[in-house]
Amino acid sequence: MPKKIRLGILGGGGDSLIGVLHRIAAFINDNYEIVGAVFSPEHQESLDFAKEIDIPLNRIYKDFDTLIEEELKLPEDERMQVCSVQTPNFLHFPMAKKLLDNGFHVICEKPMTMNYEEAKILQEAHKKSGKVFALTHTYTGYPMVRQMREMIKAGELGKIHKVDAMYYQGWINPIIHDKEKRSSVWRLDPKKAGISSCMGDIGVHAFNMIEFTTGLKVKSLLCDFNYLYDDNQMDVDGTVLIRMNEHVKGVIRSSQVATGEENRLAIAIYGEKGAFRWEQERPNFLYRMSDTEPTQIYKPGHAYNSELSLDGTKLPPGHPEGIFDSMANIYKGAAKAIRGEKYNDGEFPTMQDGVRGMNFIENTVASHKQGNVWVEMD
Amino acid sequence: MPKKIRLGILGGGGDSLIGVLHRIAAFINDNYEIVGAVFSPEHQESLDFAKEIDIPLNRIYKDFDTLIEEELKLPEDERMQVCSVQTPNFLHFPMAKKLLDNGFHVICEKPMTMNYEEAKILQEAHKKSGKVFALTHTYTGYPMVRQMREMIKAGELGKIHKVDAMYYQGWINPIIHDKEKRSSVWRLDPKKAGISSCMGDIGVHAFNMIEFTTGLKVKSLLCDFNYLYDDNQMDVDGTVLIRMNEHVKGVIRSSQVATGEENRLAIAIYGEKGAFRWEQERPNFLYRMSDTEPTQIYKPGHAYNSELSLDGTKLPPGHPEGIFDSMANIYKGAAKAIRGEKYNDGEFPTMQDGVRGMNFIENTVASHKQGNVWVEMD
Amino acid sequence: MPKKIRLGILGGGGDSLIGVLHRIAAFINDNYEIVGAVFSPEHQESLDFAKEIDIPLNRIYKDFDTLIEEELKLPEDERMQVCSVQTPNFLHFPMAKKLLDNGFHVICEKPMTMNYEEAKILQEAHKKSGKVFALTHTYTGYPMVRQMREMIKAGELGKIHKVDAMYYQGWINPIIHDKEKRSSVWRLDPKKAGISSCMGDIGVHAFNMIEFTTGLKVKSLLCDFNYLYDDNQMDVDGTVLIRMNEHVKGVIRSSQVATGEENRLAIAIYGEKGAFRWEQERPNFLYRMSDTEPTQIYKPGHAYNSELSLDGTKLPPGHPEGIFDSMANIYKGAAKAIRGEKYNDGEFPTMQDGVRGMNFIENTVASHKQGNVWVEMD
Amino acid sequence: MPKKIRLGILGGGGDSLIGVLHRIAAFINDNYEIVGAVFSPEHQESLDFAKEIDIPLNRIYKDFDTLIEEELKLPEDERMQVCSVQTPNFLHFPMAKKLLDNGFHVICEKPMTMNYEEAKILQEAHKKSGKVFALTHTYTGYPMVRQMREMIKAGELGKIHKVDAMYYQGWINPIIHDKEKRSSVWRLDPKKAGISSCMGDIGVHAFNMIEFTTGLKVKSLLCDFNYLYDDNQMDVDGTVLIRMNEHVKGVIRSSQVATGEENRLAIAIYGEKGAFRWEQERPNFLYRMSDTEPTQIYKPGHAYNSELSLDGTKLPPGHPEGIFDSMANIYKGAAKAIRGEKYNDGEFPTMQDGVRGMNFIENTVASHKQGNVWVEMD
Repeated sequence: MPKKIRLGILGGGGDSLIGVLHRIAAFINDNYEIVGAVFSPEHQESLDFAKEIDIPLNRIYKDFDTLIEEELKLPEDERMQVCSVQTPNFLHFPMAKKLLDNGFHVICEKPMTMNYEEAKILQEAHKKSGKVFALTHTYTGYPMVRQMREMIKAGELGKIHKVDAMYYQGWINPIIHDKEKRSSVWRLDPKKAGISSCMGDIGVHAFNMIEFTTGLKVKSLLCDFNYLYDDNQMDVDGTVLIRMNEHVKGVIRSSQVATGEENRLAIAIYGEKGAFRWEQERPNFLYRMSDTEPTQIYKPGHAYNSELSLDGTKLPPGHPEGIFDSMANIYKGAAKAIRGEKYNDGEFPTMQDGVRGMNFIENTVASHKQGNVWVEMD
Repeated sequence: MPKKIRLGILGGGGDSLIGVLHRIAAFINDNYEIVGAVFSPEHQESLDFAKEIDIPLNRIYKDFDTLIEEELKLPEDERMQVCSVQTPNFLHFPMAKKLLDNGFHVICEKPMTMNYEEAKILQEAHKKSGKVFALTHTYTGYPMVRQMREMIKAGELGKIHKVDAMYYQGWINPIIHDKEKRSSVWRLDPKKAGISSCMGDIGVHAFNMIEFTTGLKVKSLLCDFNYLYDDNQMDVDGTVLIRMNEHVKGVIRSSQVATGEENRLAIAIYGEKGAFRWEQERPNFLYRMSDTEPTQIYKPGHAYNSELSLDGTKLPPGHPEGIFDSMANIYKGAAKAIRGEKYNDGEFPTMQDGVRGMNFIENTVASHKQGNVWVEMD
Repeated sequence: MPKKIRLGILGGGGDSLIGVLHRIAAFINDNYEIVGAVFSPEHQESLDFAKEIDIPLNRIYKDFDTLIEEELKLPEDERMQVCSVQTPNFLHFPMAKKLLDNGFHVICEKPMTMNYEEAKILQEAHKKSGKVFALTHTYTGYPMVRQMREMIKAGELGKIHKVDAMYYQGWINPIIHDKEKRSSVWRLDPKKAGISSCMGDIGVHAFNMIEFTTGLKVKSLLCDFNYLYDDNQMDVDGTVLIRMNEHVKGVIRSSQVATGEENRLAIAIYGEKGAFRWEQERPNFLYRMSDTEPTQIYKPGHAYNSELSLDGTKLPPGHPEGIFDSMANIYKGAAKAIRGEKYNDGEFPTMQDGVRGMNFIENTVASHKQGNVWVEMD
Repeated sequence: MPKKIRLGILGGGGDSLIGVLHRIAAFINDNYEIVGAVFSPEHQESLDFAKEIDIPLNRIYKDFDTLIEEELKLPEDERMQVCSVQTPNFLHFPMAKKLLDNGFHVICEKPMTMNYEEAKILQEAHKKSGKVFALTHTYTGYPMVRQMREMIKAGELGKIHKVDAMYYQGWINPIIHDKEKRSSVWRLDPKKAGISSCMGDIGVHAFNMIEFTTGLKVKSLLCDFNYLYDDNQMDVDGTVLIRMNEHVKGVIRSSQVATGEENRLAIAIYGEKGAFRWEQERPNFLYRMSDTEPTQIYKPGHAYNSELSLDGTKLPPGHPEGIFDSMANIYKGAAKAIRGEKYNDGEFPTMQDGVRGMNFIENTVASHKQGNVWVEMD
């Protein structure tokens, strides 16, 4: 019988989107309990945020070093088992390393480090530690991505001969064409954002997706970046030609100036016996193509899926996983009402909806039974 | 600053899908804390399940009446504030009524009651109680459903003149054509499932969606059911002609024998100045049509959405809300590893993925800077 | 070896859309030659139109009766074999009848007649004549509609138990809400348009599609029309509950006030072993669903299709049949240039396009062969 | 008033797909009349084919040189005005050149020539001739492709900064992995197919599409081909990095081993103020995206389209242009019946369909008028 794992959080406070995503993810399968955190560099902000999400304050530490120090004083069966690193990028490496060195498991946001050198040092630390290190390449958790991987591993596409991945966003478009904006945003400042914007932030997801699904490794690459303006030092767009093992060629395209694109991560994998196409914005639809048969649409939750895919699905087919969120919105509305806060009509269905529903059902039965006649609602 | 609401759970234990959905929804916005429950009619099962999801055992009661009795003994600031009713349908009414009568807020699964008579009694109890009653018509929580409602309310479609809603599933198809199966499944037994199968279980969602989005009320209806076999007493399919106020006509179609359909709830609303189309299986895409302009695709999270819609979105556009689930799958895999349980390759990205990612990013920069030449991965 | 059939045209002159459609259709498979016509009630207009589309003038008759009279004087191997009736609705019956009575084959637009009484008379005339009578229910000619029919006939869906068809357009919306417009348009004048607008014009296509694809017959129906305004006498929207043989139930929805809908004819057929979904606006995609397998997308031209379907496809898969039209637009542009008429840049690709294309191809080879280096275009 | 242009055909006989496409395209807008041809290198085959499609035999010449010679003897107002070159690729250049040199207009299939050298020579001949030369880059004729071009020209996307085009097919997949097949198919034999397979056959369409829609020119490129096997000398897949004028970068991807892809030509164009996405397999849907507004779906035939786009549309919105083909299939079925040939049930709607349709319409009226009651079909 599982017991919840004691989880610490580093970063992710305030309005952090990544913070919400990690907290919900940690909860969803009843596996983790947040026992402590450093949500912010300001201690008071950390404490305030802890109150806001209503978790105990006694292990909200003033900084990361204190967290390590204090947690190590606790008996092992009370001590945090794992920390989730959600801080700005440059802190990923030092925090992850110190956590591993002190015997904590680590869940870490990407990019894992600021550069490859740090990555190799961290790899060594990880080996020595014997601890779990999980990197949150979020998109590999989708049931249909897992399904691709398992079917490819089982040989269902035959030998792979071509891969094609893309990750297009458009959010830098309204920034890049304005000289003042593009020289002030931290994302385009190499001192703050590291050596790469587009490839480092999103291209790497497409790269990871290719290796994850095919089991192949990129062996060499040729890349062309696009800066759009001479005074801009960061890539906002780029194309990478790749060569993988087993003589597979492919291409990775990545852009942050693909105007109007939201979060278009997509992958196509072509093999001797078949092919896959998948897009992140419609994550429940996996297209399997072949030379001679009708294209098939694989969807989550069906018995025809692999064990790995089914392990990642909680509801029957046809319930887009966003349904958790839809239900959560109703709980949120009800919470406002319960607390006596102001809420808008429409935030949750009410008694009146229930009464009308029952009236509707009874009337449909009455209309049918009386020979398909009109009946009046109350 | 919000404090978590003390929540009790009735039903929803074991493998209950509805239980998972409610627990996650309750957590997602940091509004609720589960303080007690009767997960199952068997006390031991309730206790076991509480251990499994790792919540305190001291308020896991042996039955519903005991829960009421014991909770009322607690001081008000410890007592459950709200109970979520997720039991079999016939218990919704007695539980909800007793909860309201004893001063608890109620969140209740649908159908609210077994019939219209009970519904009206419950409505009276609710009025007397002054408490919050929220019915979980889940689909009304989707951001784009809320957006439809708000835009219609703001007059953007002009006068509505036609509505068209459907809810098609196919799951009864493999049952209905087998005489033994159809005579043994509880869903098709009027004693257990009530007066209606298809209309009561899913048609009522389509009905609710119409009234929720348009603000109009169904005034009269004419219905035809489909039983498929003479020895089957429950509707497994049906069509309802409706007449609403303001001379609006429409149609509701509902089926549980629409072979191969998963969970196809869809609505179209036609007005003088424009129209909407929305489907539950692609909940992030809202189509707005007009006589003369290109059709527009509204999506969640954009600034052009209404306040009610934006209140239900947590991530930027292009992140289907199922992304919480994808991330949760990664946390789940890491949890297995942390506990030392068996897990499959691919359940979470590892150190190796991080190292390769950094190597990739650095190599793209190197290839570009050296004049678009091939560089080797480590 | 086929020889072209001698075709006469009744109606379809000037800007008639139906005229263009029939002329192109008659040409496409090299089966027909237009030998004569009455394009318009005004003889001069008929002659002018014949000149415009450049066909011989000697058999452009002043009216229908003259056409019959004169053609009968011709030797049989010169005489028109078939006439295509594309006139206003009220002329379909008298013309078709006289043609059949005089030994001509008939291709006739729908609605076949103004009422059922005429239809039965025409049926008698047809039987006596021994001639071919083809009614242009256009949509049944789509390859994927034919594929549905053949697969259903072969039993691939098992016993059908539910059908669902719709035909929604929105074009009456800008008319119906304006009292003057709705009282003056001929479509809403029962004297000119017959007993039904929406059902007669488009609902009947949905009806025909159901019977065509399933091979079943509608046995009884219950209908509700929508007029929107009391002073409007014609149905602009309606829903029909249907009962077919073999205990199949279904529904037909039809609307001309579905704001923003263009020409949305769609059908879904649910059977014991599987189901089909098809939409006219994406005619090359036929979805086959089942309880347990991934949904399949059938497309035209593949070897897996039936003989009847393949007989209706001329190009390889992936060429939407509209490609004929795209090529025709290029021929049209070239025709303007050849005649020395004014044309816009972009109406057809020029020499310059060809030169650049060859330059491009050679440069791609050069870049690759030289080791993936940049090469300059001329 | 237009008169038909006298057209000669070179190649395109027998089962030639390109022949069908050109003949139908030439007919569709009533602009051309086929007056002569050399359909095949074998004179008898040319004559047989002319009989099959039922055109006069007197100007079916034994070879191309004879055609030129004999046509030049005819008076100018009888002589062919334009020839359409649909022969194997290596004949495009000599035929087009001789036609231009002798004062004929030319419509020519692509690739225009076998190499760039020939292309430049042909360009000179064209200049000297003063005649029209149209290259059939078919896809530029689609109404929505024209619409992209016109809106971009009008500045609606602002400054373009990124282009992305692809053309993926999969048809070489079943050939390439079989050593015997890949060494025998003419497409992979450089002696017969020229210097490039994938880029020459389809990549060049993507290239042309980019220049056509944006009005920009590719200035330099870097290319990587994929041969898959060492003993294969022809590119079957390739990626091209491109740099255009005005500092625009982009990428062209092309493949003939994209297993299961049919004819996936797609283009995306990103500009400062907006973006376009279009796919050939759904040619009637043009997506216009922006940073802040809902994505819009442009469709053919609407008044909001440009003159150039509307000039290429013949039917109202919602009629996919493939409808010509659907109607043509019905005419084809009727032709079989008229000739007394064998035909299958379902090839065209019959009298019986018409009678049932009228019965249906009358019954819907009766059911509605009698108060929504069931009525029986005959």
